[in-house]
Amino acid sequence: MPGTPLPTIFYGAVVNPISLSEYAALPHCLIAVGETGNIDWIVDNVEAHELQDALALKGIVDAPVIALKDGEFIMPGFIDTHTHAPQVPNMGTGGQYELLDWLKHVTFPTESKFADKEFAQTTYSSVVRRLIDAGTTTCCYYATLHLEPTKILADIVHELGQRAFVGKCNMNRDSPDYYIEPCADKSVADTRELITYIRALSKTSPSSEPCQEPLVQPILTPRFAISCTDDLLSSLGDLAAADPSLRIQTHISENLSEIEYTKSLFPKAPHYAGVYDTFGLIRDNTVLAHAIHLNEDEQELIRSRNAGISHCPTSNFHLNSGVAPIGLYLDKGIKVGLGTDVSGGFNVSILNAIQNASIASKVCSFSGGRRAPDGSKQETFANKPFSIATLLYLATAGGAAVCGLEKQVGSFTPGKSFDALLVSVRDEVGNVGIWGLTDNLPHDITVKERSNFLDGWLERFFFCGDDRNIEKVFVQGRFVGGRTFQA
Amino acid sequence: MPGTPLPTIFYGAVVNPISLSEYAALPHCLIAVGETGNIDWIVDNVEAHELQDALALKGIVDAPVIALKDGEFIMPGFIDTHTHAPQVPNMGTGGQYELLDWLKHVTFPTESKFADKEFAQTTYSSVVRRLIDAGTTTCCYYATLHLEPTKILADIVHELGQRAFVGKCNMNRDSPDYYIEPCADKSVADTRELITYIRALSKTSPSSEPCQEPLVQPILTPRFAISCTDDLLSSLGDLAAADPSLRIQTHISENLSEIEYTKSLFPKAPHYAGVYDTFGLIRDNTVLAHAIHLNEDEQELIRSRNAGISHCPTSNFHLNSGVAPIGLYLDKGIKVGLGTDVSGGFNVSILNAIQNASIASKVCSFSGGRRAPDGSKQETFANKPFSIATLLYLATAGGAAVCGLEKQVGSFTPGKSFDALLVSVRDEVGNVGIWGLTDNLPHDITVKERSNFLDGWLERFFFCGDDRNIEKVFVQGRFVGGRTFQA
Repeated sequence: MPGTPLPTIFYGAVVNPISLSEYAALPHCLIAVGETGNIDWIVDNVEAHELQDALALKGIVDAPVIALKDGEFIMPGFIDTHTHAPQVPNMGTGGQYELLDWLKHVTFPTESKFADKEFAQTTYSSVVRRLIDAGTTTCCYYATLHLEPTKILADIVHELGQRAFVGKCNMNRDSPDYYIEPCADKSVADTRELITYIRALSKTSPSSEPCQEPLVQPILTPRFAISCTDDLLSSLGDLAAADPSLRIQTHISENLSEIEYTKSLFPKAPHYAGVYDTFGLIRDNTVLAHAIHLNEDEQELIRSRNAGISHCPTSNFHLNSGVAPIGLYLDKGIKVGLGTDVSGGFNVSILNAIQNASIASKVCSFSGGRRAPDGSKQETFANKPFSIATLLYLATAGGAAVCGLEKQVGSFTPGKSFDALLVSVRDEVGNVGIWGLTDNLPHDITVKERSNFLDGWLERFFFCGDDRNIEKVFVQGRFVGGRTFQA
Repeated sequence: MPGTPLPTIFYGAVVNPISLSEYAALPHCLIAVGETGNIDWIVDNVEAHELQDALALKGIVDAPVIALKDGEFIMPGFIDTHTHAPQVPNMGTGGQYELLDWLKHVTFPTESKFADKEFAQTTYSSVVRRLIDAGTTTCCYYATLHLEPTKILADIVHELGQRAFVGKCNMNRDSPDYYIEPCADKSVADTRELITYIRALSKTSPSSEPCQEPLVQPILTPRFAISCTDDLLSSLGDLAAADPSLRIQTHISENLSEIEYTKSLFPKAPHYAGVYDTFGLIRDNTVLAHAIHLNEDEQELIRSRNAGISHCPTSNFHLNSGVAPIGLYLDKGIKVGLGTDVSGGFNVSILNAIQNASIASKVCSFSGGRRAPDGSKQETFANKPFSIATLLYLATAGGAAVCGLEKQVGSFTPGKSFDALLVSVRDEVGNVGIWGLTDNLPHDITVKERSNFLDGWLERFFFCGDDRNIEKVFVQGRFVGGRTFQA
């Protein structure tokens, strides 16, 4: 039927998060992605010999089908709710410092180099490419304080086709002379200009459904309370109040010295979270990074505002910040996603955040009392190690909720965007293979057995995988990266 | 001069461990490796224009020199003091279990498959290749309980040129019916036969200095106390007593349930370490894996026997075992090396063990009290995060001492074996590049500045690197693996 474009159809194993405790492992799944990049329909339990009938039922004849091999599966793309694009150049160094010394000796000197637009162009191009190929389909970026270089980051993200929030740091206090904004007014004016600039980018985006948000969006980014004067935070609060869909991101309660110093700068605030809340900056589309040492009042405030927490376990370990009690927050119903926090964290991949979120949950369970051998002790998220379902959810659907994108990405449902990874754990690919998977599985195994295999593939990908196992990366249905992508 | 073979000469940046607190970063170093694979001589601080003069002083004319680029450096090969070759096929799965359930549901079923010699041949070939390419130049292997398949592992290690200790598990109790030795006598007889077999292999080894030990050696491997009857441990103790150079490896104090059960099986022993000590199995060439929950008496016993501990942080986290107080052991002068403990651990690379040893040390420092901001609190290994020097030492020289190979490998000194990695962190290689290093460093920077760069390369390799950054792997001077190796 000329003029009626056929959808792209994937057939094979699919992993789909359902909740913090459950995911669907679907060994024989059909997903149809329309021209807009949204998922048209999903049909599960289609055996190979039923494939053509299933397509015919949907009115599809002669459509090309991308059939996955054993050891390959599709899952939602990773969502990195907290990272610093300009810090990738010093990733993996500075682990001897704690936060405030690390900013002084490692981070601020590196970030200041991005005043050079050519340096920004070269570096950000490499950074965004690397993040996409690592499977990050949605990313919350901190850039530097510089307006024009931050526009460059937004341009690159737009061009390479990643979904992202891009923010310019607001920082007019307690920063070095060579890397500080001159005043609140300038900081706010630059922020307004960046918001306008980024929102104009979407007008040149590939077509998408009218109900969907643009791929690249601005995000308000007061660096952290220490680096912002009261009048700057007040102006940013006004800006946010006038623009309810504008996301907000900042750091909170990462390090004990940082918390003490924050309290000294804002003596009237009841606590760290209260500083931001006073200025209207904690709301349901605020992303709060770290949140390691929150007291109960702060937890309750964040929960009541429905703000989200970006859990950055690699960074929390690496900068000696502490272990965030994420299970406790989940028990309280607080939204949580994962963040790599490069370069407090030393790896751009959410796979590394998954591994260290698992480790952090195990460290919490060590101190929270071990389970009784008979299993009688009530299990909560706070006192047990995170399951694969929990880790998957945090890395995908949980992150989507933290970004306010839960209706659009994070899992596969008709109408949502197809932001997805095609993962392979076959022997011949990269550094992780399931022994024997160079050949396909026997044909006569049951669906349940296939589902168990798929569980194993997912778990092995999480703990042994890296970018070599990510064959293709899709954002809004477009093939934008992965091991087999040719730019 | 025909008949007088020229040494292989490396020129460039070299990293050399000195102690737990110090390493040498040598930006302009010459290392000459003789035909035996031992290091002939090392000269430091040779600028490029002095190179020919430096060689002439050593009587070397027209020798080919392997000159490293900026971003490349040579360091001692990694020493994995604890891993299970037959568990690699289930690596990255089973993290929901603790030790005893994990053995039952994951490990024993997999290990039992190695009764099939063809499966053993195929799998072990892949495993050893992968470990060498990951930079492991010396490895302490547990095989399965099977004699002939364990000979196959030793053959493969011998053929591929890795330095290793290979042991057959002794396990005649508390193991499943399908995977248990029938009696102590059979277990000991097979062990004796394996020792004889492996010692015969070295007669076909490449020539090496008479004072040096063969590349592949046997190691006594009582799996753990639970799996061995008193009479088996007694016979193994007799065997060890008659053979002082024979290394011994076993597990100790990994998991609280395991410890309780061990105490119930050996009610007369004062503690877990006492079980092994009763039978003469804790001595200066014993490798004790995990050692998480040792009491003070056990620590003192191990120290007094000069036995070594294999620290397996990834496994300790992954199987919910706990955090080993390694800094405390180092303060007491106990020998410690690193182990991947695949598949309790989920990664064959010592780089991953380094990252998680760093994290474990930080977790210990969280609970051991934070440093005062003025630094007045005395720093010990127990209450501070491990430095890069400490991590490097544990991964190389510390591991050598645990294996009783401290005179032969683990650092670069004339007379020692050249077991080394040629590492690259250049932009164009693998997943980690130092920004700007595609071009070389300016010529006019000082030696001190070059040394600082080298510190950064090492740190970044440890935290961001993987097998793609390991260009060449040398064991006893032979090029045996790495990214550029063609088998």
